[in-house]
Amino acid sequence: MRCYGDFAVGEVVEAGPVLVTADAIKAFAAQFDPQPMHLDAGAAQNTVVGGLFASGLHTVCLNMRLLVDGFLRDTAAMGSPGVDEIRYLAPVRAGDSLTMRLEVIDLRPSPGRADIGFLRCRSEMRNGSGQAVMRMTATLIFARRDRAGVAGTE
Amino acid sequence: MRCYGDFAVGEVVEAGPVLVTADAIKAFAAQFDPQPMHLDAGAAQNTVVGGLFASGLHTVCLNMRLLVDGFLRDTAAMGSPGVDEIRYLAPVRAGDSLTMRLEVIDLRPSPGRADIGFLRCRSEMRNGSGQAVMRMTATLIFARRDRAGVAGTE
Repeated sequence: MRCYGDFAVGEVVEAGPVLVTADAIKAFAAQFDPQPMHLDAGAAQNTVVGGLFASGLHTVCLNMRLLVDGFLRDTAAMGSPGVDEIRYLAPVRAGDSLTMRLEVIDLRPSPGRADIGFLRCRSEMRNGSGQAVMRMTATLIFARRDRAGVAGTE
Repeated sequence: MRCYGDFAVGEVVEAGPVLVTADAIKAFAAQFDPQPMHLDAGAAQNTVVGGLFASGLHTVCLNMRLLVDGFLRDTAAMGSPGVDEIRYLAPVRAGDSLTMRLEVIDLRPSPGRADIGFLRCRSEMRNGSGQAVMRMTATLIFARRDRAGVAGTE
């Protein structure tokens, strides 16, 4: 199981593709973002996109799924304190196939807890044409193997 | 229908509550964030939280739903260029009831397009004890009524 000390700045992970169907766009929107342009192809025709497109958060959620499947499995991941930035760069349309490219951009031990460390990563989702549709920077928490069993001793 | 010019900095919107069940936590996790602490109460007992807790993105998605239901309906909302910051402040557990408080913190016309403007908002999700569990700052795009019909004339 990979712990904090096993990662390096510059490490790159690629995952996917994941196909985004019209049904998936509408199902996500119905649950979490019921705006007409994500629910109804007719309504979406009157937007600048000119057709059904996915909620930005849907793309963020698909990025999370690829992150878990392609990177976090078999690691000592313990959650996240947050996200620093999300940029929606291009619409995600029905039929798009998205791939994720993640890069580790920073590693730092927790200043307050000897048993964990923070990994900062930038991840990008691209469609089948290679166009970036979403970019985000997030921080993840990992256990430190070197301090396993000594949590809370500070 | 409310357009860009109809909002004011300082406007506050409250929405909710939304109940977060164990089934909803697991269903979201199974789809988008299949990490053990969001899927399995037994596995979650070994974490610092000590029990099943929701994916942070699940809380962000519930915030989006309350934002649409409580704020974006009957507005000329046209999407979002992105999110500036998300902070996960406390775990969301099965049985928590979350409410959203949103404040408009900035308004600015688009420098490049006369028909739209950007609204920046800070929103917070709180549990039934009034504890903030998530805070985020996002930007939304709205059509400008005063320029309706003149899109693209620049």
